[in-house]
Amino acid sequence: MAQGTLFIISAPSGAGKSSLIQALLKTQPLYDTQVSISHTTRGARPGENHGEHYYFVNHDEFRTMINDNAFLEHAEVFGNYYGTSRKEIEQVLSTGVDVFLDIDWQGAKQIREKMPAARSIFVLPPSKDELNRRLRGRGQDSEEVITKRMAQAVAEMSHYAEYDYLIVNDDFDLALSDLRNIIRAERLRMARQKARHGALITKLLAD
Amino acid sequence: MAQGTLFIISAPSGAGKSSLIQALLKTQPLYDTQVSISHTTRGARPGENHGEHYYFVNHDEFRTMINDNAFLEHAEVFGNYYGTSRKEIEQVLSTGVDVFLDIDWQGAKQIREKMPAARSIFVLPPSKDELNRRLRGRGQDSEEVITKRMAQAVAEMSHYAEYDYLIVNDDFDLALSDLRNIIRAERLRMARQKARHGALITKLLAD
Repeated sequence: MAQGTLFIISAPSGAGKSSLIQALLKTQPLYDTQVSISHTTRGARPGENHGEHYYFVNHDEFRTMINDNAFLEHAEVFGNYYGTSRKEIEQVLSTGVDVFLDIDWQGAKQIREKMPAARSIFVLPPSKDELNRRLRGRGQDSEEVITKRMAQAVAEMSHYAEYDYLIVNDDFDLALSDLRNIIRAERLRMARQKARHGALITKLLAD
Repeated sequence: MAQGTLFIISAPSGAGKSSLIQALLKTQPLYDTQVSISHTTRGARPGENHGEHYYFVNHDEFRTMINDNAFLEHAEVFGNYYGTSRKEIEQVLSTGVDVFLDIDWQGAKQIREKMPAARSIFVLPPSKDELNRRLRGRGQDSEEVITKRMAQAVAEMSHYAEYDYLIVNDDFDLALSDLRNIIRAERLRMARQKARHGALITKLLAD
């Protein structure tokens, strides 16, 4: 069985990353591509299910997992912990399924160090004006909030060059097709194809 | 201007490599993808044009080019010389065009050493039976010739693992789509995208 590939995907908010991942998963069967499910200490919101949106755990359980080195990466956001379980991802990859991990540049950096075979993709918006428009949303936020959001977007984007691939999300369908192209090409890489076509190769090379 | 990518493509005869390259070029405009044109000392055959199928040169000219280190690779086949001019390829790549180079594993090895940014693709037939059928052709060759051809095919295939990508040419349309996927994904790699979208990136990161 050929191992799946772990794809790390990052973007500033407003680049359309979440819509791209959703559209991708809609057309890819579960035995082909999945998103990684994080562990978190925050409470489940209405409609969120354990094992579907998150694995909901308490602070003690989370700390034990940190101590056991169970996370590929973890971070604290507003007093709540979020983490990516190494075991969870490795189990899915071992069945040949590709896993998408939606994460910021800091998480991406941690993952790259622990799983060098991961491929990383950065998504950029098509222009500063468009980014501005998307960050303003429905125009219900104060200028202060928007300025802060823009600064965060610029901070995230400043790490784009650490990634393997870059997609500019100008035309959504083209960006989605780019994403699919990257997945397919990674599947055609020698290491993966060698595992997949081992029997054929042995026969072809036999005298 | 983003540099084009040099793609090396190798396969045993009977794998369908030439048909794949022809089909690829039919749908890709010249400003997008080209094949490399070799220099050779052999005479032009009817219908072959200088600068289209080959650059036809005499032995002295070829030897001068060897001495000037003008070739990325060269080889002698039945007393005739064939070579790939470094200048020729670099000029096309510098205009942002991808270049395909159809070559055997020995040439591929020389190119990889001189141009580490080149990407290499190996094409395999779908089965030993199918390879046999294709090598037999119209059934007009002796068993001896066919046995020799099969031995050559196996020798070429034994180097498959030296390549970056592997395509199994079972369904022709799928193999062609695989080839296009690889080209597209290579264009989405960071180094190339960085050069292509430099102006956008500068604007996005400006305060």
